[in-house]
Amino acid sequence: MTATTRIVEIRRNVLKANDAIARELRERFERACVCVVSMVSSPGSGKTAFLEKTLTMLRLRGLRVAALVGDLATDNDAARLARSGALVKQIVTGTTCHLDALMVRKALEDWPLDELDFLFIENVGNLVCPASYDLGERARIVLLSVTEGEDKPLKYPSIFKSADLAVITKMDLAEAVEFDADAALRGIDTVRPGMEIRMVSAKRGDNMASFADWVEKLGSARSAG
Amino acid sequence: MTATTRIVEIRRNVLKANDAIARELRERFERACVCVVSMVSSPGSGKTAFLEKTLTMLRLRGLRVAALVGDLATDNDAARLARSGALVKQIVTGTTCHLDALMVRKALEDWPLDELDFLFIENVGNLVCPASYDLGERARIVLLSVTEGEDKPLKYPSIFKSADLAVITKMDLAEAVEFDADAALRGIDTVRPGMEIRMVSAKRGDNMASFADWVEKLGSARSAG
Repeated sequence: MTATTRIVEIRRNVLKANDAIARELRERFERACVCVVSMVSSPGSGKTAFLEKTLTMLRLRGLRVAALVGDLATDNDAARLARSGALVKQIVTGTTCHLDALMVRKALEDWPLDELDFLFIENVGNLVCPASYDLGERARIVLLSVTEGEDKPLKYPSIFKSADLAVITKMDLAEAVEFDADAALRGIDTVRPGMEIRMVSAKRGDNMASFADWVEKLGSARSAG
Repeated sequence: MTATTRIVEIRRNVLKANDAIARELRERFERACVCVVSMVSSPGSGKTAFLEKTLTMLRLRGLRVAALVGDLATDNDAARLARSGALVKQIVTGTTCHLDALMVRKALEDWPLDELDFLFIENVGNLVCPASYDLGERARIVLLSVTEGEDKPLKYPSIFKSADLAVITKMDLAEAVEFDADAALRGIDTVRPGMEIRMVSAKRGDNMASFADWVEKLGSARSAG
């Protein structure tokens, strides 16, 4: 067995172990009636600003929200998100390039899940590795900022394929960077035909209400499920 | 042995194997008198635009340049870089989140290295995983665009620690995103004290000549070495 085959084999086992914990988490989330949404993107695509706005809006709608946020180092994001008034916890991953289900389970050990309506999980900024790790979430959102270039869906197809909604962020900068929305939408539709898309600006507020509606609808799906 | 210890063990072996190939590459590059520079950054931080401009400038200075460019999918970047007139090859990594020394060795199999002065290697857009993989390069450049936020060095310290030069890109957008240069410079200096930094705009040309000078100086270091 070569080193590469061994790695593939071990990686498969790690993913299998992760999937088992994720399944267990998913059942726990269902029992607690909390709708869990994860967010993945490149570093610096505006996940935290977007999430801060989302938490604030959902709280104004009377919903009980919380967030877990992953980073290699610092608790900057947790501090920013806590400004929304939501319950927030930072997961520091050290050198690990993604969150896994075990990290999520550990972080939630002392959390009163049944007192929450929505839990958001902001992954480490990485457009590749988080694609493979199920976190037990009901939906995964992939964010792409207008400054990153329209071709990212074609260049990082796995993560777009693994997501349920694409959010194009920083629309306030679209003109400054000559963002070609048609090309970006075409790219997303090529790798994940029919995926829903929101084009937002957390800074100006564009389409944030529409996103909050999407989240609320996702949450209410549980009562029907 | 738990799955995690096994993974750590195997990962160590993979890195050891990578290091051996990287050492071999480094010797080959030295023998061929080609100066190899790698570039790492988040997806969409402007590596390709920056590299295209760099290749064009160095060619105008009479230098023989080439580039390898890594992506999970598409050969968009190779097509863009080829406009500079330089020799360019795309490495498509599939699901692998970084380049490794073996990929570089394979890509260079049929290349006349001794006819080159400089070879650039543009890594997959990922601010985490490429940090661990030596590619036999003489210097590694980490790029950070002003749109990503000033805190990235603190949040992704490993990759900044592994680099020899930091380049802050898209300075033409600094005002639009209210980029706090002092905070970014402080962050870089915290994780990698004394590292040289260039603040550039490939679009407007700011500081591109200064960067080309840095590259030339790096190349001439070999005759002294």
